[in-house]
Amino acid sequence: MSDHVYKKIELVGSSKASVEDAIQNAISSASKSLTHLDWFEVQEVRGHIQDGAVGHYQVTLKVGFRLVD
Amino acid sequence: MSDHVYKKIELVGSSKASVEDAIQNAISSASKSLTHLDWFEVQEVRGHIQDGAVGHYQVTLKVGFRLVD
Amino acid sequence: MSDHVYKKIELVGSSKASVEDAIQNAISSASKSLTHLDWFEVQEVRGHIQDGAVGHYQVTLKVGFRLVD
Amino acid sequence: MSDHVYKKIELVGSSKASVEDAIQNAISSASKSLTHLDWFEVQEVRGHIQDGAVGHYQVTLKVGFRLVD
Amino acid sequence: MSDHVYKKIELVGSSKASVEDAIQNAISSASKSLTHLDWFEVQEVRGHIQDGAVGHYQVTLKVGFRLVD
Amino acid sequence: MSDHVYKKIELVGSSKASVEDAIQNAISSASKSLTHLDWFEVQEVRGHIQDGAVGHYQVTLKVGFRLVD
Amino acid sequence: MSDHVYKKIELVGSSKASVEDAIQNAISSASKSLTHLDWFEVQEVRGHIQDGAVGHYQVTLKVGFRLVD
Amino acid sequence: MSDHVYKKIELVGSSKASVEDAIQNAISSASKSLTHLDWFEVQEVRGHIQDGAVGHYQVTLKVGFRLVD
Amino acid sequence: MSDHVYKKIELVGSSKASVEDAIQNAISSASKSLTHLDWFEVQEVRGHIQDGAVGHYQVTLKVGFRLVD
Amino acid sequence: MSDHVYKKIELVGSSKASVEDAIQNAISSASKSLTHLDWFEVQEVRGHIQDGAVGHYQVTLKVGFRLVD
Amino acid sequence: MSDHVYKKIELVGSSKASVEDAIQNAISSASKSLTHLDWFEVQEVRGHIQDGAVGHYQVTLKVGFRLVD
Amino acid sequence: MSDHVYKKIELVGSSKASVEDAIQNAISSASKSLTHLDWFEVQEVRGHIQDGAVGHYQVTLKVGFRLVD
Repeated sequence: MSDHVYKKIELVGSSKASVEDAIQNAISSASKSLTHLDWFEVQEVRGHIQDGAVGHYQVTLKVGFRLVD
Repeated sequence: MSDHVYKKIELVGSSKASVEDAIQNAISSASKSLTHLDWFEVQEVRGHIQDGAVGHYQVTLKVGFRLVD
Repeated sequence: MSDHVYKKIELVGSSKASVEDAIQNAISSASKSLTHLDWFEVQEVRGHIQDGAVGHYQVTLKVGFRLVD
Repeated sequence: MSDHVYKKIELVGSSKASVEDAIQNAISSASKSLTHLDWFEVQEVRGHIQDGAVGHYQVTLKVGFRLVD
Repeated sequence: MSDHVYKKIELVGSSKASVEDAIQNAISSASKSLTHLDWFEVQEVRGHIQDGAVGHYQVTLKVGFRLVD
Repeated sequence: MSDHVYKKIELVGSSKASVEDAIQNAISSASKSLTHLDWFEVQEVRGHIQDGAVGHYQVTLKVGFRLVD
Repeated sequence: MSDHVYKKIELVGSSKASVEDAIQNAISSASKSLTHLDWFEVQEVRGHIQDGAVGHYQVTLKVGFRLVD
Repeated sequence: MSDHVYKKIELVGSSKASVEDAIQNAISSASKSLTHLDWFEVQEVRGHIQDGAVGHYQVTLKVGFRLVD
Repeated sequence: MSDHVYKKIELVGSSKASVEDAIQNAISSASKSLTHLDWFEVQEVRGHIQDGAVGHYQVTLKVGFRLVD
Repeated sequence: MSDHVYKKIELVGSSKASVEDAIQNAISSASKSLTHLDWFEVQEVRGHIQDGAVGHYQVTLKVGFRLVD
Repeated sequence: MSDHVYKKIELVGSSKASVEDAIQNAISSASKSLTHLDWFEVQEVRGHIQDGAVGHYQVTLKVGFRLVD
Repeated sequence: MSDHVYKKIELVGSSKASVEDAIQNAISSASKSLTHLDWFEVQEVRGHIQDGAVGHYQVTLKVGFRLVD
C-alpha cells in the first residue's frame, strides 16, 4: 500500500439464509458499480421477525475500496 | 406504522451449532409468550469453550414487539 | 468460581467459510499453547473482498482462560 | 430516595408530529399498566421517510419506575 | 423486504427553527437526487450560538435508501 | 448450559452505604419475583449528594436469569 | 479561526416545553457570565415523568466558547 | 425542578482505602467552593499499583450542581 | 451558515511520513472531484508495520462538504 | 517517565467480598510473574448470583507495566 | 499521589501546523491561569479545509490539574 | 492471508517529540521479541504536562502479529 486513498461506503445487505449471505449480497451489489473493493467491516446485525422466526437478517457493513488516481 | 408504541426486551440465546441458531432459539422462546414480535438487534456474540472448541454460542439480542392498545 | 483470576487475550481468526469457522480457528490456535480456556467474546467482524465476493472473514475475539495458581 | 429499587424498560414511541410527541406517546402507553413512573432517557432518534419527508419519528427511550416493596 | 440491498449516506441538515426542521431539510435535499429513501437515524445534534441564543440547529443523520437492481 | 434462553432486565439499586450494597439491594428485589437469577452486569454508578457528602449510591445493573421452558 | 483556543463546559438545561427550549435555557444561562459563546453539542436527552406525562425535558449539552487572549 | 440550569464539572478523587472513599474525597473538595451540589456520575475507576497491591484508587466523576439565577 | 445541507463521506488516507500527511492526502484526493469541502473529523489512526517500523500511517476521516442547491 | 514502553494486559479478578477485593486479587496474581506493575484501569464489573445474593464480584481490569529494556 | 483531588477541563486547541502544535497551544493557554497542570487526554482531532488542504487542525483535549487544598 | 491466526497486544509508547515517535517507540520495543508484526491501531493519545508544555506524548496502541503455526 503506497500513498493510496480509500473510500468507505455503508451498505445494508439482507438475506433469509444467514449473516454471511447478507454480507455477500451487499458486496455483490457494490461490485456491480465499483471496482477495487478491498475490505468490509460489519457494523450491526439485526433483522425482521415473521411468524416467530427470523424473517430476514439485515447486516450493516462498511465497504472500503481504493480510489483510482 | 402509525403512532404505535413498541417494547424492546433483551434475551440471550444459546446454541452449539451457529450464531444464527442461537438467534433463532431466543426468538422462538420469546414467541411462546409474546405476540407482534417485529424485529431483533444483535448486541453481543460470545460463548463457552470446551476441549479447545466452541462449546456454545451465546448471542445477546434485543427483540422489539408492538404493544397492543 | 472461587477467587480465581482469569486472563483475556485478543486474537483474530480468519476463514474463507464462515464467521463461526473463523472463531473456531482462533480458539484452536489458542488451545495449542494454553489450557483452561473458558470463554470468548467477539469484538469485531470484518474481512477481505476478492473478485466481488468475501475472500476471508476476519473475526477479532477475546479469549478468557483461568490462571493456574 | 431511600434504599428503593427501580426498574428500567425500553420503549419506542412513534409520532408524525415531533420528537417530543413520540416521547410522550411512549410514556402514555407505559402509564397505562405501570405506576411510579419516574424518569426517561432518550436512547435513539430515527424514523421513516415517505414521499421525501419525515413519515414518522421513532424515539427509543428507557423509562424508569420504582418497584413497590 | 426480500434480499434487497440498502445504502446509507450521512447528511447534516441545519435550521434556525427546530431539530425536526433540520432533519426535514436534510431529507428534502436528499430526495432531490435519490429515490427509494426509506429511513433516517439521528447521529448528533449540535449548533451555532449567536447573541446568546441558538443560531442554527445542525443535525447529523444517516439516510437509508434501497439500491435499485 | 445447553440451548437455554436467558432474559436480562435492567434495575437500579440504591444504598447509603456502598456500591456493593446498592448492587445487593437490586438483586434482593429481583429475587422476590424471579427465579434462576444467574449473573449481573454493572452499567453505571452514580448518586445523590447531600450536605457535601454522598447521599445515596445508585447502581444501574443488568440481571440475567434463565427462562424456564 | 486562527490559532485560538476554546473551552467547552457541560450544562444541563431543563424545560417543560420542548428539547429546543431546554437547550435555549442552558445557553441563556451561560451567556450571562460568558462571552464569545460559539457552538453547542447535545450529549443526552432525558427528563422527569409526572402524572403519566413528560414533566421536564433535561438536555445535557456542551457549550464551546473562545478564550480571550 | 423547574427551568433550572445545572453545570457539570469533572473531578478525579483518590484514596488508598476504597472506591467509595475516592468518590467522597472528590465531593468534599468540590463542596468547599461550590454550593447546590446535586448528583455525581462515575466515569472511570483506575489506580496506581505499588509493591504488588493497589496503591491508590483514582475515580473520575462528574459532579452536577444547580446554577443560581 | 443558513439552512444549508452538508454531506459527509468517509475516506482513508495513507502516508509513510506522518498522521498529518495521511490526512492531507485524503483531502487532496477528495478535492479533485468535490467542491465546497468544509471540515474533516478523524475517526481512526492505524497503519502497517514493516521491518519493525511504521510502514504506513492510515487515517480514517470523515470529510464534510456543502451540497449546492 | 522518559521514552519507556509499557504493556497492558487484561485480567479478571473475582471475590466474594467486594469490588476492591476482586481488583486486588487480580493484581496480586499479576505480581507473581511480572515486575514493574504501574497502574490498572477497571473495564467492567459483573458477577454471579447465588441464592438471591451476590455470589462473586468479577472485575475486568487492564494492568499496565513497564517493559524493561 | 496521596489523597489529592484533580479537576479536568476540556479545551480545543487549533494550529495550522500539526496535531502536536494544536495540543501545545491549548496547554499554553491553560497554563496562563492555572497551576499544577499534570496531564492531558486527546478527545477528538478534526479541522477546517481551505482550498483543498488542511486549514487548521482542531484538537479537543482534557487537561487535568491538581486542586490545591 | 489464508486461515492464519493473529494476536493483538496493547502497548503504550512515549516520546517527548511527537505522536508518531511514540508509536514508533512502541513498535520498536515489540519487534525486539516478536516477529511477523503486521499492523497497529491507535487507541488513545495522552501525555504529561511539565512547565506549561507537553512533557511526553503517551500513545496507547494495539499491535497485531501473525501466530506461527
